[in-house]
Amino acid sequence: MPAAPSASYSITARLEVPAGGRVVSQLTNAVESAGGSVTGLDVTASGHERLRVDVTIAASSTDHADQLIAALRAIEGVSLGKVSDRTFLMHLGGKIEMQAKHPIRNRDDLSMIYTPGVARVCLAIAENPEDARRLTIKRNTVAVVTDGSAVLGLGNIGPKAALPVMEGKAALFKRFAGIDAWPICLDTQDPDEIVRAVQMMAPGFAGINLEDISAPRCFEIERRLRETLDIPVFHDDQHGTAIVVLAALTNALRVVGKKLGDVRLVMSGAGAAGTAILKLLMAAGLTDVVVADVHGVVHRGRTDMGDDLRWIAEHTNSEGLTGTLKEAVVGADVFVGVSAPNVIDAGDVAKMADDAIVFALANPEPEIYPAVAQEHAAVVASGRSDFPNQINNVLVFPGVFRGLVDAQSRHITTAMLLAAARALSSVVTDDELNASYIIPSVFHPEVSNVVAAAVRDAVLADRQADEAGQDAPGAV
Amino acid sequence: MPAAPSASYSITARLEVPAGGRVVSQLTNAVESAGGSVTGLDVTASGHERLRVDVTIAASSTDHADQLIAALRAIEGVSLGKVSDRTFLMHLGGKIEMQAKHPIRNRDDLSMIYTPGVARVCLAIAENPEDARRLTIKRNTVAVVTDGSAVLGLGNIGPKAALPVMEGKAALFKRFAGIDAWPICLDTQDPDEIVRAVQMMAPGFAGINLEDISAPRCFEIERRLRETLDIPVFHDDQHGTAIVVLAALTNALRVVGKKLGDVRLVMSGAGAAGTAILKLLMAAGLTDVVVADVHGVVHRGRTDMGDDLRWIAEHTNSEGLTGTLKEAVVGADVFVGVSAPNVIDAGDVAKMADDAIVFALANPEPEIYPAVAQEHAAVVASGRSDFPNQINNVLVFPGVFRGLVDAQSRHITTAMLLAAARALSSVVTDDELNASYIIPSVFHPEVSNVVAAAVRDAVLADRQADEAGQDAPGAV
Repeated sequence: MPAAPSASYSITARLEVPAGGRVVSQLTNAVESAGGSVTGLDVTASGHERLRVDVTIAASSTDHADQLIAALRAIEGVSLGKVSDRTFLMHLGGKIEMQAKHPIRNRDDLSMIYTPGVARVCLAIAENPEDARRLTIKRNTVAVVTDGSAVLGLGNIGPKAALPVMEGKAALFKRFAGIDAWPICLDTQDPDEIVRAVQMMAPGFAGINLEDISAPRCFEIERRLRETLDIPVFHDDQHGTAIVVLAALTNALRVVGKKLGDVRLVMSGAGAAGTAILKLLMAAGLTDVVVADVHGVVHRGRTDMGDDLRWIAEHTNSEGLTGTLKEAVVGADVFVGVSAPNVIDAGDVAKMADDAIVFALANPEPEIYPAVAQEHAAVVASGRSDFPNQINNVLVFPGVFRGLVDAQSRHITTAMLLAAARALSSVVTDDELNASYIIPSVFHPEVSNVVAAAVRDAVLADRQADEAGQDAPGAV
Repeated sequence: MPAAPSASYSITARLEVPAGGRVVSQLTNAVESAGGSVTGLDVTASGHERLRVDVTIAASSTDHADQLIAALRAIEGVSLGKVSDRTFLMHLGGKIEMQAKHPIRNRDDLSMIYTPGVARVCLAIAENPEDARRLTIKRNTVAVVTDGSAVLGLGNIGPKAALPVMEGKAALFKRFAGIDAWPICLDTQDPDEIVRAVQMMAPGFAGINLEDISAPRCFEIERRLRETLDIPVFHDDQHGTAIVVLAALTNALRVVGKKLGDVRLVMSGAGAAGTAILKLLMAAGLTDVVVADVHGVVHRGRTDMGDDLRWIAEHTNSEGLTGTLKEAVVGADVFVGVSAPNVIDAGDVAKMADDAIVFALANPEPEIYPAVAQEHAAVVASGRSDFPNQINNVLVFPGVFRGLVDAQSRHITTAMLLAAARALSSVVTDDELNASYIIPSVFHPEVSNVVAAAVRDAVLADRQADEAGQDAPGAV
């Protein structure tokens, strides 16, 4: 199925056209006939004989953009000038910058911001290192750390090519939660080295957001960092996704009137995201769950398993099911896919229990096309923005870190992740809730605040429990 | 000698005073009698009987600030409210922040800045990694890296306590050269680990500014990073200082009509800054030079020397002088101190050659108090802002990196440092030049541009020489 025209493939073409006549409508007709959308048109210079027109067009792919340009060029009397790609233009020179908070106008400003005045601030922190959280950027700064090994769906493209994503993430941190994030793209893929690099740079940050690090290395890296650092460490691909899925599933179950503890859930995919989703759903009360990977259902009898799969085999599939994903899906209440395109079809969904819920999250091509799943399922969610119920981590990571940073948390626990998911699901009121609205938009103005408040409360509860000498809630 | 009141010890005291009468002049009298300066006074609330007055006062030390507060409190009818320290207020929450360059208003913005649009930018860089310098923050970003081992004059206070200085440095990078700098404070003081940490984080930066790392570790760290990275590495404490000293000395020699190749120079101090100054002055033409450290003059016969001192012994002091610093200074044209307070006195300066030049750069207490040195020397410079001719690295590092980054330099050479020094000295015209003005103010609007242009030209010359197959100018 061809994708719809999108801003992410948006170009601006500068054209010279004859003045007068119907040439402007010829332009827009040509674009629309070729399947593009005109999203802007400016006459930027006008003369008696010629006009200069800048046309901004959304295409559905780069090839499609080329076709649209060819269609414009084919119009009689039109000459084509510069074509610019709006996405590339936004990335030129990078998407974030550093700003000083105070002007440096004269020697007095200099003597307070830098030497000699700064020395007193340094000495105060040397005497009481915790003051770094008050008197420096450590108060509000998160490192977005990657090794470029699993960037989006692009795979192992390395640290430099990962930088545009990390910058975008940093921009989202600021936009949705006022957090100062800075990208750190590491020129190593060795887990020992990544762990050590993050440990060494930790003094200047209030938290670490791991990003796009491939499984199973990401599990070990995160675990070792959590054991050694006094700031929270969060792998967004795992836990951000898990929180949004739990929140969305909570609301999908509200729609169909089922309970998490009662449903049978089949999951396709046992990578980083899948494993994190599984663990968080189980912490929230899910008991009847079967996981399948590319080799079929995960069960104790399989001999091809590493530590992570073995954990899944031992904690799921209590009936000892074997066979294929398609066999496991029969009769299930919920399907969650974090795997690969087109692993189930309409017939499989039809064989699920009544009021089935399908979360097909593989991106950009889901496990089953949402419109197809909707034929037989009561609620469908995906990672796509062109269907209802988009599962998008942007709903979660800004608020989670806002809460952690505000509460000066030294770690992150399952209780905090559960609190974030509960908060996110609560943003959708009973009046608003329906099968096409189980999760709010990323631009919903309350999301980040509500999630942050819940996480902040969970940190304080955790600290009180600690101080009362009770067992702290288990780490993730 | 007591220091003058300064903005770096500036406090604001909130007072309640009786309305009417002469109470406001009593306040200012009390401050000035106790040696403070009133720099601001606001009546922030007024009633029939009482006024609320905020008085901002510059003191000369924290103890002095306490004395000033006591003097205010002693005035009859005055009650003291909150006292705030303006320097600490400016540091609260950190002095820098991250900003996104583009607004994220809607899904279209999101799809260009983040997924799915960002994927195309990533792929472009994966295909051509050099594009990272065009399409990401690598275009304009410098890491300010420290291990906190030699912070200002405070010594080894560690990475967290060093952070306020690194933030200040980042703010100066932006203010004076539009560079986005981010502080990286490393939780290790092992040279191998520091080298590896910087190598790993290098993909996201266009340059590395090493800062406040103690000698002799700083030499090895810088050398190894330069050998392995494809971006320039600059230890400001060494090379920034060396450039300013060479520029200032060039102009001091213009004032007295001597040539660098003809003068005898005695240097006190053989640490990081001293060694770098020595090497750059020699690269610029200095030949007759004697260095002394705490154990006296450095000569080939000394048996207490490591590699760095041995290099100095072999390349200076061709006459084989031995003895003390004070003995060496007799008859010298130039004294450069980067060592410790009060190592020479007025009598020593009197014994120097006619038209002597004294650079007493130990901070905050110089090798000889500038006013004392002026009695016998023709030109005096120091690190202090309360005397003419302040040797301040802020004159150099912003412009040097602006030039390196603009020219996308992969390294830094002695030729580039010499070009920066020449450019800085040239900012002082013949008409302006005199014994009290051998170096411009850090707020001189041309300094950064002129230095940047000279460094950019030196990078291009270096590249052309490389491409022409000539020997590249030697690395620093």
